[in-house]
Amino acid sequence: MVSFFFYPKTIAVIGATNNPKKFGNAVTINILKNKNLQSEVFLVSHKSQEIAGLKCYKSILEILKDVDIAIILVPARVIDEVIDQCIEKKVKGIIIITAGFGEINEEGKKKEHEISAKCEEAGIRIMGPNCVGIQNLDIGLNASFIQTAPPGDIGMISQSGSFGCASFYAMEREYIGCSKFANIGNNIDVSFNEILEFFNSDESTRIICIYMETIENGKKFLKSIKKIVLEKPIVVLKGGRTSLGMKAASSHTGSIATDYKMLKTYIKQAGAVLCENTNDFITALKTFSYLPIPKGERIGVLTNSGGSSVLFSDKAEEFNLKLTEFSDGFKEKVSPYLIPLVKLVNPLDMIGGADETTYYNITKMMLEDPNIDIVVACVVIPPFLEMKSDEHYRGIIHAWNDTGREKLLIPLIMFGEEFKSLRDHSRREKATIFFTPHDAAFAIKLLIDRMKIINNFYSI
Amino acid sequence: MVSFFFYPKTIAVIGATNNPKKFGNAVTINILKNKNLQSEVFLVSHKSQEIAGLKCYKSILEILKDVDIAIILVPARVIDEVIDQCIEKKVKGIIIITAGFGEINEEGKKKEHEISAKCEEAGIRIMGPNCVGIQNLDIGLNASFIQTAPPGDIGMISQSGSFGCASFYAMEREYIGCSKFANIGNNIDVSFNEILEFFNSDESTRIICIYMETIENGKKFLKSIKKIVLEKPIVVLKGGRTSLGMKAASSHTGSIATDYKMLKTYIKQAGAVLCENTNDFITALKTFSYLPIPKGERIGVLTNSGGSSVLFSDKAEEFNLKLTEFSDGFKEKVSPYLIPLVKLVNPLDMIGGADETTYYNITKMMLEDPNIDIVVACVVIPPFLEMKSDEHYRGIIHAWNDTGREKLLIPLIMFGEEFKSLRDHSRREKATIFFTPHDAAFAIKLLIDRMKIINNFYSI
Repeated sequence: MVSFFFYPKTIAVIGATNNPKKFGNAVTINILKNKNLQSEVFLVSHKSQEIAGLKCYKSILEILKDVDIAIILVPARVIDEVIDQCIEKKVKGIIIITAGFGEINEEGKKKEHEISAKCEEAGIRIMGPNCVGIQNLDIGLNASFIQTAPPGDIGMISQSGSFGCASFYAMEREYIGCSKFANIGNNIDVSFNEILEFFNSDESTRIICIYMETIENGKKFLKSIKKIVLEKPIVVLKGGRTSLGMKAASSHTGSIATDYKMLKTYIKQAGAVLCENTNDFITALKTFSYLPIPKGERIGVLTNSGGSSVLFSDKAEEFNLKLTEFSDGFKEKVSPYLIPLVKLVNPLDMIGGADETTYYNITKMMLEDPNIDIVVACVVIPPFLEMKSDEHYRGIIHAWNDTGREKLLIPLIMFGEEFKSLRDHSRREKATIFFTPHDAAFAIKLLIDRMKIINNFYSI
Repeated sequence: MVSFFFYPKTIAVIGATNNPKKFGNAVTINILKNKNLQSEVFLVSHKSQEIAGLKCYKSILEILKDVDIAIILVPARVIDEVIDQCIEKKVKGIIIITAGFGEINEEGKKKEHEISAKCEEAGIRIMGPNCVGIQNLDIGLNASFIQTAPPGDIGMISQSGSFGCASFYAMEREYIGCSKFANIGNNIDVSFNEILEFFNSDESTRIICIYMETIENGKKFLKSIKKIVLEKPIVVLKGGRTSLGMKAASSHTGSIATDYKMLKTYIKQAGAVLCENTNDFITALKTFSYLPIPKGERIGVLTNSGGSSVLFSDKAEEFNLKLTEFSDGFKEKVSPYLIPLVKLVNPLDMIGGADETTYYNITKMMLEDPNIDIVVACVVIPPFLEMKSDEHYRGIIHAWNDTGREKLLIPLIMFGEEFKSLRDHSRREKATIFFTPHDAAFAIKLLIDRMKIINNFYSI
């Protein structure tokens, strides 16, 4: 198992430095920033005596205690010596952050083989090289040179460190975050599959996401996801889906080509969510972070904007979703709460004057209706009639709360990204918002697919 | 011509009110808010004597001056009287904001026919009913009950008022805006085509966008866009592309079904951009607002993040774009400015340490390279090595400015939406940013298509 990488009792940073323009400084500072970190940290530096108040060792061999993981940041040309010392020191695992190996040329690939052979013999596991490091948010460990991920329940494996870094920005925006993060770069030893298995067993990881450019042991990978998806959703984004992308990927991590069409079929069959772009990737993560799995497929839509419900309906059909017919009972029930202009059809267009109370009432009646499994509440924020920009959303979430959040509720607030009061309310309520019809419909599709995976399995 | 609607010397608001919970108040306030508006405004109200310091008339017939446009907000049940008075007053045009006509039932459709027949006989043009109104940003006229659009050079025709309203939020976020806006609702008289022709002749409109749910005179519409696209790009989003969407649209504006597949083929042949979702719609508008048309198709990519350039390359292939091979001369030229780890291939991955100066130098060399027509500068904002969050973007735009902005430059800053310094710089520089590989590649595709439309026409 690779879990010890994420729960080290002792860490040595080899190549620590006081120079803030070096990655060896960034990693050191990221680790030391958390004053509550229980892991003991040792710094190894040729030049510095002390960094951030901590004494430096000239070599890992000078450290008296056992070292669980060694994080290596020295230049590629001097790595041999450092690896040999790690072997002598009998560390459990090494994270090689240093770049300039297999992704560069054949010589680099040869060097990788040498290192992995040596370490394998010594029983030492390796992450990297050419990676940004790992993070375990549960214990406050940021053993990487990128920013600490926002905390949450997503376990992320990324073959690109910078894609991880960028995803953290997007996660922060969506109020979602990571339990664990691993960038395994050229992955010469520890594989996707091992980390995947670890995330599966990890209690604080509820959702798993993967950015990958290549996959070494496809069969094992597919077998793993097939098993894991029954417990946790898995969201995959593949870089190098096309020949241009694959060419770029091969110069990035030395990846070899994968037949994407075939992989796609297999991954979908295995039950993971395969995203075709970065937007869908983040949408999938926010969907699984915030929303319950529906108990059926029948959708009811309410709106104050005809245009937005038309656009949602188009996307609904594209994703093969089903809008229900309202029952006579439902029509009778809602009618007194709506102005006479409103036609009692699905989508229910309550027209621009619908306010917080109307949204509350109608959302609640839909959530309580036995013929509706999923409620989509569309809003275009009205800049008129003295309405508050967040009142419709407040009404919607209030109704969701009052019905115990049992049904799937999708707030679709067209182009509402910039309304701070709205986002603040969303954060406070631990609810989410979709800002385009595509994202709203995609989220529903994902959750219906997930419902089917789970139902099919447990009905066998 | 319908231009007089947008340049009225005199306006009467019929159904003005002091009650801030009524649309008649919203329209009145929106018009009067602009103290510099040259149009003379008259308010007609049954109940109020004075609104916002302006005297009210009991009827349009009491107004002594000629009235160019009458904006009607009275309830549908009393509209006949008001229309008759407008005819007697010999107004040039009427904007019927009131809803509850053809979109509701057959009786409403009949009423629409009556009104349009009467007005046609009297030579009076009608916009609406069931619309939010119109705006002319050039003269500061907001004759609608939605917020004033951010100013810019987009002429927008929207069949859904609320979609217009929502788009303004998105435009504001992207620092783009409107020259003119028209929501024609059930369009019983003034048509898309007429407004389209007006926007074509309008000097302050450089880009035209359309949200439509139905199209009445398809042939004329296609003929118009075929002609106009040679001068101005036209971006179309169609609501009711699917049968579910069409069903929703028919209850929204009483639209009748259009065969979307056929329309799609025709619109594309005519040279307009047809968007499949709201995200692409806004991306297209920002692309045409900010970026020059390239002179060729050869793309050069630079990046500090392998992952982001891999993802961009995938999207590039999906959109049939071409990454160029770097010439030996180019490689020689850039080599001294890059660290030895960097492989001199396209995409050019300068690795995480690349800073403002590196971005400036390499972007500039690509912009100056005769074998490159389009430069894509990918960035993942590094949270390390004391880099500033906007420095890479600054370097990129600096290089663009120093080369006279002659070539197409696409800044792709992965998930960088929330960096205020970045957006501020973008606004100041009148440059733009794309935040996902999809949007960046889509923008390039649009501009290459536009290049071809223009080249094909002028080469004949």
